[in-house]
Order: sequence, then C-alpha cells, then structure tokens
Amino acid sequence: MSQRVYIFDTTLRDGEQVPGCQLTTEEKIVVAKELERMGVDVIEAGFPISSPGDFRSVVEISKAVTEPTICALSRAVKGDIDAAGEALKWAKRGRIHTGIGSSDIHIRNKFNSTRENILEQAIAAVKHAKSFVEDVEFYAEDAGRADLAFLAQLTEAVIKAGATVVNIPDTTGYCLPDEYGKKIAYIYEHVSNVHQATISIHCHNDLGLATANTLAGVMNGARQVEVTMNGIGERAGNTSLEEVVMALKVKKELGLHTNIDTTRLFPVSNLVSQMMRMPVQANKAIVGRNAFAHSSGIHQDGFLKHSENYEIMNPHDVGVPKSSIVLTARSGRHALKHRLELLGFRYDKPTLDGIYTRFLDMADVRKEVNDKDLMELVR
Amino acid sequence: MSQRVYIFDTTLRDGEQVPGCQLTTEEKIVVAKELERMGVDVIEAGFPISSPGDFRSVVEISKAVTEPTICALSRAVKGDIDAAGEALKWAKRGRIHTGIGSSDIHIRNKFNSTRENILEQAIAAVKHAKSFVEDVEFYAEDAGRADLAFLAQLTEAVIKAGATVVNIPDTTGYCLPDEYGKKIAYIYEHVSNVHQATISIHCHNDLGLATANTLAGVMNGARQVEVTMNGIGERAGNTSLEEVVMALKVKKELGLHTNIDTTRLFPVSNLVSQMMRMPVQANKAIVGRNAFAHSSGIHQDGFLKHSENYEIMNPHDVGVPKSSIVLTARSGRHALKHRLELLGFRYDKPTLDGIYTRFLDMADVRKEVNDKDLMELVR
Repeated sequence: MSQRVYIFDTTLRDGEQVPGCQLTTEEKIVVAKELERMGVDVIEAGFPISSPGDFRSVVEISKAVTEPTICALSRAVKGDIDAAGEALKWAKRGRIHTGIGSSDIHIRNKFNSTRENILEQAIAAVKHAKSFVEDVEFYAEDAGRADLAFLAQLTEAVIKAGATVVNIPDTTGYCLPDEYGKKIAYIYEHVSNVHQATISIHCHNDLGLATANTLAGVMNGARQVEVTMNGIGERAGNTSLEEVVMALKVKKELGLHTNIDTTRLFPVSNLVSQMMRMPVQANKAIVGRNAFAHSSGIHQDGFLKHSENYEIMNPHDVGVPKSSIVLTARSGRHALKHRLELLGFRYDKPTLDGIYTRFLDMADVRKEVNDKDLMELVR
Repeated sequence: MSQRVYIFDTTLRDGEQVPGCQLTTEEKIVVAKELERMGVDVIEAGFPISSPGDFRSVVEISKAVTEPTICALSRAVKGDIDAAGEALKWAKRGRIHTGIGSSDIHIRNKFNSTRENILEQAIAAVKHAKSFVEDVEFYAEDAGRADLAFLAQLTEAVIKAGATVVNIPDTTGYCLPDEYGKKIAYIYEHVSNVHQATISIHCHNDLGLATANTLAGVMNGARQVEVTMNGIGERAGNTSLEEVVMALKVKKELGLHTNIDTTRLFPVSNLVSQMMRMPVQANKAIVGRNAFAHSSGIHQDGFLKHSENYEIMNPHDVGVPKSSIVLTARSGRHALKHRLELLGFRYDKPTLDGIYTRFLDMADVRKEVNDKDLMELVR
C-alpha cells in the first residue's frame, strides 16, 4: 500500500458555505492557485447545481488551475450530476463527488427511504457520473453513525459501479478516534474490492476531534483526507489541513507523507483568513499567532538552553517568516508589500496605498513595526 | 475504579501566562468564582514564587472560593515549595503542584542532570510539600517524550513519597492519541502503588490533538484532566475544558462523568475570552459563534426535517441562550444588562453606560440587535 496521503482541499466548498465566508469567483481563483502552488492534490471547487455562481466558479477554477484534480459536488440526483459534469468540461482532471446518507438516522429522517433504495440510488448516481468523468468519488453521508455492515455493503456496491474514491465522512463530528479508526479498518476487512478504490476521510470538529479522527483514518488504511485551511467549515468546521499535514510530517514513525510544501502553510492560512473574513485565534495549532511563542519564564529559559526542550516543529517549516526585517517610518511601499506577501497578504495598488498610509501613522507612534503589528494593521 | 473525571482548571495559571492575557488579582477572583459556580474540582490559581502578584492571587482566590481545591505551582525547589505552601495558608483545601522534567531531553539539556538525581530531587520535593499540605500533585514534565520505564519508576517513587496525584503531561504536544493512551496504560500496569494516587492528564495542542489525547488518557484509567477555558495556554494552548466535558457527556458509552454544569460553558467562555483579550474563532468547537450554525442548504433542510440529522448536542446544553428576546432602540439598560449577562459579560455601571450608548447607535441602524451584534459591540 502506498505511503502517500492525498490532500483533498474543500476550503472553497465546505469552507466557503459558512455564513460570511462567501468569495467571488475571482477571489476563489486566487485561493485555488495558492492551493495548487502549495501542492494540494484535489481542489473541491464548488457545488454547481446550488447556484450559477458556484457553477461558474467550478468552470473558471478548472481553466485557471492545471496540476490538481478539480472536484465538483452533487447529491445522488441526475440534475446535480449533470450540472457537475457540465461544469467540469474545462478541467484537465475532473472528478464528480456524489453521494447520499448512509446512517439509518439520515435514511429514515432525511430521505424517508430504506437501505435497499439508498443502495440503488447510490449505484445509479455513480454510473451516471461515470458517463461524464472517469474519476468518481462517492460520499456515504453520516457514515460516522452508520451501521457498519451496511456501510461495507454500500462501499462494495459503489466501487463495483465504478467509484474510484469512497468518502466515509463523520458528518456530525460524532466519533472518537478509536471508533472512527475501527470503522475504516472494518471497511478494509469486509469490502472485497476495497483495493480498487481510495478510501477517503472527511471529519468535522464538533467535539474537537477532527484531526485525531483523520489521523486514525489514515493509520487504518485511508489514503485521502478532506480538509480545509484553518479548519473552516460547517458549525465547528472541518479538519484543518495544516494540522494533519504537520502531524504526518512530525510523526515520522507513521511512515506517511503528503505532497504539501509546508512552508506555504502560514501565508496561505493568512490569505484565506483575510479573504474569508474568518480570524484565526491566537492559540490555533500550527498557524495561530502564538503557536510558536514561548511565554512563561520556565519555558523561555528551557527553550533558550535548547530549542528542542519545548519545540517539536521549527516555525520556518510552516512558513512563519524570519523576523530579521524591521519596518519603520523610513520603509518604502516596496518593503511593506514584500513583507505583507511573506505573511500571505496580496493587495492591488489602491488598497496597498491605503495600508501604507496607515502603516506610516503606526510607525510614527511605535517606531518599529513587527509582523504582529502588520497583521493588526490589515485586519 | 470511579467513573468520575475530576476537572483541574489551569486557565488562571497556564492560560494566564500567555502574552497579553494577564489579569489583575480582582479579575482572577471573578473568573475563579465563575469556575466554582460551573463545578470545577481544582483551580490552579498561580505560581507563587514567580511574582508578588501571583503570590497575592493565590492568597486572595483561596479566601474567595470555598468549594474547589486551590492549587499552587512550584518547581521541585525548596524556595518554590515554601512560597506555594505559604500562599495556600488561607485555602480550605490546598494542593501544592510540584515537579521536574522526566524526559532525557529535559534531564540532559535543561537540568544538566541524570535520572538518578532527578528521582532524588522529585522525592525530596514531594516530601517537603507534604510538610505544608496533605494533597500534593507531582508533574513529570515532558512525560510525552520520556522513557516509559523511567516514567513508571518516577511515578512509583513520588507516590511512595506521598504524592496524591501524578500528572503525566505531554508538554510539547507531541503524542498521538494511541501513543499517549498506551503511556497511561503502561503506568497502570507497571506502577505497583498506582491506585493510591490519581493519574492526571495535561496536554498541549501543538498538533491539534490535545482533546483526543486527554480522552485517550481517561479511557486508559486517568481520572483528572488539566484543562483551560477556550484552550488558551502556551503556544497552541492547552486542552479545552469545554471540548473534554462535552465529549464525555455526548459519548455516554464511555461511562464517565464530570461535575460540570455544562450550561455555564458558553457564558464562562465569553467571560474568559473578553477578560483575557483572546478572541475565540467562529469555528471553535462547542463555544465558537458558528459551532451550532447550520449554513448549507442541504444541512438546513436536513436539520429542519429532524435536528438529530446534523446535531449531536443541543446548543442549550452548553448554555447558548435562547434567542427569543430581540433588543431594539426601545430596550432599556436593564434588558441590555440581562442579555449581556446571559452571554457571560458583566460590567460595572460606567462601562455599561458606555456600551448602552453604542448599543443605541447600533439599534438605530440595524433596527434589531441580536446576540452576534452584541458580541461585536462589546469586543
């Protein structure tokens, strides 16, 4: 089994549907290009049937980005799949993501259906999606609460129907890591054709366990993880891309790796936070303002004696820029622009001019302007 | 073995040492009383040797709070322990928390010492602390990276010396849940006197795994968890109190419970966030502004059909107030004050007057002012 874990980024789909986070198509293209540069394998670009704007975004991102697979979401419904297939026409590598509820709670209360009908609908959806693209991912919604035997049966059926990836989401953020890991292990043990597809992990953070559950998934054989920058997404959000990528990097004993250039994590986190108007809290793992700050006397002393005493990662590995440049009231627009870019912030000229004016006011008062001040300035 | 998990809150010690989070003694008393009301078992109130302010805070919190045990931190050094013992004189139930590095990295690089000397120093520290209080907790710093056999030997020795609680911290946030759980299981299997003490869990969130590691700890026998409100603390922070408490409540199959009144989680989270000037991100589990917001069409539809489709917790269980009261420009100071208190915000009269003036301006523009608007107003 390959030791490469594929990164499926859904910042522009599951992340973007959060209230207040909506982006224009042009903004989405900026983010998609940064995700491509960082080494993301799959970009979920939207849910084409949901709105003309989402449809257009999938089309334009397909044109703008060449390396990653572009994925479009659909329910297990013909019209949804048609729209997804249509929107993906310009993608070099397109994937339709289709699926339906798999837990009895969803089957009964959401679909007013039966396991037998769900199975038929799932097979039909995958087959229809295959008429547009070779690469079809199936999601078994609410798999976190689904009956295991039925989940295995469903997985086997959709792989037989042509699914190349099967997503086992913990939609409500309900599972403990042990429990979720066992679910994935069960699928590997009970689905005869499992090695014809990639098993994918999609977790939510309602109990603060999304990263742990995602790691439990890959430790039990899954090789794709569905994540967002800064963990944005429905309710308490999705699994954080930056946490999973760094955990796999730090925990070398797992023997797994991703294609992510980790030095892009910090700038891309800032870019997404700013564009989506979603501040990242200071104590957010990996990308928070304090994530690498040693504050107590005991810690500072230990850290200065030997950094490994309190540090398991080097801040430069995640792209926190070196603080050797100090900006003052004598610094020009170019120095300010360069520094802001290292922090992940890009602006057009008029916006930058406005920031520069406020920067000069700040520099007059504070004498030296550091990165923390700059981030305050642009927020 | 008891199924009660004791909540040791270190918001006022590990949380408060974060840059910008410093509180006055009077502010700490406000927080301590709220922690008491919420049902916290142990309040770590400060590190008395570190500053006269910390010393005074431990004294005053000891006087102000009666139910929880009051804990004071010290290194395994006579002067530290003397200061802690002195500061705890007014506590109804006082506990000294003392300890030293247990990993070879810390023993060599921080203490320039040997395992033998560390063992002696640990035993001496516990014995000295016992001359002040009956209840002595020992921390084996950096246990996350310590040699297991030595960790067991150290644990056995400090229990023999009189420690009532042994804290096995993952100081650098380095462990995976499996790995950390096995560490705790190993201690239960290899420490002959382990049942004479409580094993305590203290995790950091550098890889986003603090909550999962803490749960792995209690699932393997630990019965105290060291946590902070909103997960504030060094670097990426400590384990979040609200996440662990709600995970134990939701996952009934674990058969564990705490004494926390979960309806106080949301107001206390807001209070701590505001007093410590540490905003909580919208997608923070349990207490974030969006934690219970269903935004996508699919989710809203499913949620309205049957709330259980997408909700594993009821927002009222964590104290998110019902939004039946709408404030307008006709609302008086009293209504505003009451609503702010439900959200966790308490103000003296002059501050409230200022907020009321700004509230009227906002109400003139927006017509109706909801909780989200109010939280924006006071930030």
